[in-house]
Amino acid sequence: MAHDVPGNPCSLTATAAVRLIHDGKLRPEVLMDAYLDHIANRNPSVQAFTHLDPAQARAAAASARSGPLHGIPIGVKDVLDTSDMPSQYGSPIWTGWRPRADSAPVAWARAAGGVVIGKTVTTEFATRRPGAAMNPANPAHTPGGSSSGSAAGVGAGLFPLAYGTQTAGSIIRPAAYCGAVGYKPTYGLISRIGMKLMSDSLDTVGVIARTVADCALFAGAVSGRDLGDPDTRPDRAPRIGICRSPTWGNAEPETQALLARVADAVGRAGAAVIDRELPPGFAALIDAHPIVMNSESARALGWELAHHPGLLSPDLRERLEIGLSHAQATLENAYVVFETTQRGFPTAMEDLDILLTPAAPGEAPKGLGWTGDPAFNFIWTSLHVPCATVPAGIGPNGLPLGIQIIGRQNEDRAVLAWARWVEAAIG
Amino acid sequence: MAHDVPGNPCSLTATAAVRLIHDGKLRPEVLMDAYLDHIANRNPSVQAFTHLDPAQARAAAASARSGPLHGIPIGVKDVLDTSDMPSQYGSPIWTGWRPRADSAPVAWARAAGGVVIGKTVTTEFATRRPGAAMNPANPAHTPGGSSSGSAAGVGAGLFPLAYGTQTAGSIIRPAAYCGAVGYKPTYGLISRIGMKLMSDSLDTVGVIARTVADCALFAGAVSGRDLGDPDTRPDRAPRIGICRSPTWGNAEPETQALLARVADAVGRAGAAVIDRELPPGFAALIDAHPIVMNSESARALGWELAHHPGLLSPDLRERLEIGLSHAQATLENAYVVFETTQRGFPTAMEDLDILLTPAAPGEAPKGLGWTGDPAFNFIWTSLHVPCATVPAGIGPNGLPLGIQIIGRQNEDRAVLAWARWVEAAIG
Repeated sequence: MAHDVPGNPCSLTATAAVRLIHDGKLRPEVLMDAYLDHIANRNPSVQAFTHLDPAQARAAAASARSGPLHGIPIGVKDVLDTSDMPSQYGSPIWTGWRPRADSAPVAWARAAGGVVIGKTVTTEFATRRPGAAMNPANPAHTPGGSSSGSAAGVGAGLFPLAYGTQTAGSIIRPAAYCGAVGYKPTYGLISRIGMKLMSDSLDTVGVIARTVADCALFAGAVSGRDLGDPDTRPDRAPRIGICRSPTWGNAEPETQALLARVADAVGRAGAAVIDRELPPGFAALIDAHPIVMNSESARALGWELAHHPGLLSPDLRERLEIGLSHAQATLENAYVVFETTQRGFPTAMEDLDILLTPAAPGEAPKGLGWTGDPAFNFIWTSLHVPCATVPAGIGPNGLPLGIQIIGRQNEDRAVLAWARWVEAAIG
Repeated sequence: MAHDVPGNPCSLTATAAVRLIHDGKLRPEVLMDAYLDHIANRNPSVQAFTHLDPAQARAAAASARSGPLHGIPIGVKDVLDTSDMPSQYGSPIWTGWRPRADSAPVAWARAAGGVVIGKTVTTEFATRRPGAAMNPANPAHTPGGSSSGSAAGVGAGLFPLAYGTQTAGSIIRPAAYCGAVGYKPTYGLISRIGMKLMSDSLDTVGVIARTVADCALFAGAVSGRDLGDPDTRPDRAPRIGICRSPTWGNAEPETQALLARVADAVGRAGAAVIDRELPPGFAALIDAHPIVMNSESARALGWELAHHPGLLSPDLRERLEIGLSHAQATLENAYVVFETTQRGFPTAMEDLDILLTPAAPGEAPKGLGWTGDPAFNFIWTSLHVPCATVPAGIGPNGLPLGIQIIGRQNEDRAVLAWARWVEAAIG
C-alpha cells in the first residue's frame, strides 16, 4: 500500500502520516521500515539513541493500536520509564536498569497507537553532563540538552515525534538548536508519573516534533486534552508582546537581530506588536530557580548520593551539595519568588495573546561538552506557563535558530494556535 | 547498657530514645529487640505490616548511622520504594516487586540514622480497597486508611515513627482513628520522589508518631527543614478559629461535642477563640477534589490500566473511568477552584494562628471493608496547607478521637508549635 504515498513516508508530518494510516493508505510497518532505513544512514552522525532495537521497533509497529497516534514512531527521552527497554537516566548508576512498568507518558502514547521506536539520549539525570548525541546540522556542535537525543532525532528526521522533559531549558533550547519545534506545556498537563523526577516544582514533560500541529496532536493524544484542530486557523491576528526578558544580556547578536526580524514579520502579517518587559520582580527568578532546582534535586537523589556518590559527575555532585547547603530562609524565599511571579504573570501579559522571546542565546555552541545556556528558558519553566519554539532561520554558523512563544498557564490551546500563526507568518 | 533505661524502651518517645542513644545509654539493637518482642505479641491482632523480617531489622539497627534519628525504628507505608524490601503498593499487580532504589523519604530517613523496621499496610495504591490492618483499639474496627499500617502500628506501639502519605485524608484520618499524632506537611515539604504517585497535585508525604515533637523531629530530619525545637514553648497563647468547615454535615454527634469541648479547653488555657468558617467559594472543593484526584490518578496508572485492568479493584477502576470521562471544561474548572482557594486561604485565616477542625467524622467505623470518610481532610489537602491531628479523647464506642490543627502554607513550624500547645491544653 506504500505506493499510494508520494515519496518517502519519513518526509510526512505525523499528522499527515496518521491520516494515511487511518485511511489504509500507509501501514505502520512500512512507515517504521522507512524510518529504520533512514536511521541506519543518518544516526551514525547524530547518535540520538541510548536504545534502538530494529526488530523490536518493527514488532511494535506491527502491533500498534488504533488511535490518534496510530503507527507513528516516537523517540522517548531516557528519563521516562519503559517496561520493555532499558531506562538509564543518563547515569552509570542506572546502567542496564529495566523498570517493570511504562511511565504514564509512554503508557498513554502506546494506548493512543504510538510506537516507541527507542530511547533517546539524555544528559545525566536531565542535568548537565552530556550524552553522545550531536547536532544534526553540524556534528561538531551540541544538540543542546537535556532532551538531546529527542531534539537531534527529530531534527535529523529519525522519528517524527519525541518526548522531552524540561526543568530549566531542556525542551525548548535543544529543539531550537536542532531546527525542530518544541513544546513545553503548562506544568502538569502531561502526566509525568514514571519519570525519573528531579525537581518536583519544575519538571515538566513535553514534546518535540517538526511542526506545531504535530506537537498538538501528540500532546493532546497523551494528555486527553483538546489542544486544538490543526486545520482551524484563528480568525484574527494576535496581540504580541516582544519580550527581551530579564536575561537579555545573554542574547548573542544573531538573537538580537532575530527578535527584531520576527517582530517585523509578525507585524507585517497583521499582528499588533508592542514591547513588553516582565515586571522588575521577575528578575528574582534568576537566583530563585537554581535554589529550588538544586535543593529539590538533591533530595530526589537521596539514594544515589548515599550509595553511589562516586558515579555522579563532579559538577552534579557540587550542584547537589550547594542545593543541600542553602539556609532555610534562602529556600523559603525562593519559593515565595516562585509563587509571587506565578501569580503576577497574568497581569504582566495583560492585553496580550502571547509573548515572543528568544528560545536560546544563539546558535548551538561548538563542542559536545556543554549543552548551552538555559538563560531564556528557566524563567518560563518556573512560571509553569506553556512555551513553544518554532524554527526561525539560520545563524552565522549555519545552525538553526528558534523563536519562543509564551502564553498564560493552562492556555495551551491558544499558545499552540498562535505558535502555528507565528510559524506561518515567519515561514 | 539497656539497664540505664527505666522500664521498656518501647515506651519512650523517639525524641527521648534518640537522646539516650546519643548519650550512649541505649543501643539501637536493644531498642529494636524490644520493639520486635512487642511486635511478636501485639502485631497478630493489628496486622500492620506487609513486610517484616526481624533479622533484617536487627541488622539494620546494628548498622544505623549516627544522626538525628539514630537507631529509631520507622514503619514505611508500602507506597514508598525501598531497595531492600518488597514494594507492592497494596495491589496484586505489584506482588513481589523489588525496586532498585530507596525512595527519597526512605533514603533521607536512613541517612539521618533511622532504621526501616518494615513496610506497612496501604490500601490499593493509597486509595480505598483495604489491606489487612486492624484498629489497635478494637480489631473489629478499621484503622482508617490509606496509611493503615502506619497508623495502626504507631497506635499499637509497634514502632515510634512511621511514614504516611495523603491525597484526600490518608494520614490525618487513620492517625486520629488509631490514637496517634499525624502530620501532613505543606505540599512538597518532604520529597516524595520514589513514591508510587497517583495524584500529582495532591500526593503529600507525611508522618505519624506518638507526639507532635516526634513528628517534628522526624519530618525535620528527612526534609532538612527546621521544624522547631520540642523544648521551646510559644511565649503567648494562640488566636484560634474554630472551623466546622463546609463538610460539617458529616460530623457525628461525638465530633460535634468534641469540637465544643476542645474550644472550651483551649479557651481556658488562654487562647483567643472565635468561630471562623471558610468563605463560601471553598465548598467548591467538595466537587473539585475528586475530579482532580481521579483524573490524575487515571493518567498515573496508565500502565496498570493497559496491562492489568482485571487486577484493579472494581471500585478503583470505576473511579479511574470517571476520572477519564470528565469534560475538559470540568477538569479545567476544578484546577481553577484549587488555585483560587489556595490563593484565598491566607485571607480566610486572617488574624488567626491556627484553625481547629475535626480530624474525622467520628470514631473509626466498624468493619474492615471501609476505611472511613475523608470529609474533614480533602479540603486541607487540596489547599496544600499543613495539618496535624492530636489525640483528643475517646468516643462512645471506646475508640480514639482526634482534633485537627490547620495553618498556612509553609508555616509548618508554627503549626507544629501550636499543635504542641493544643496537645498540652487538652491533655
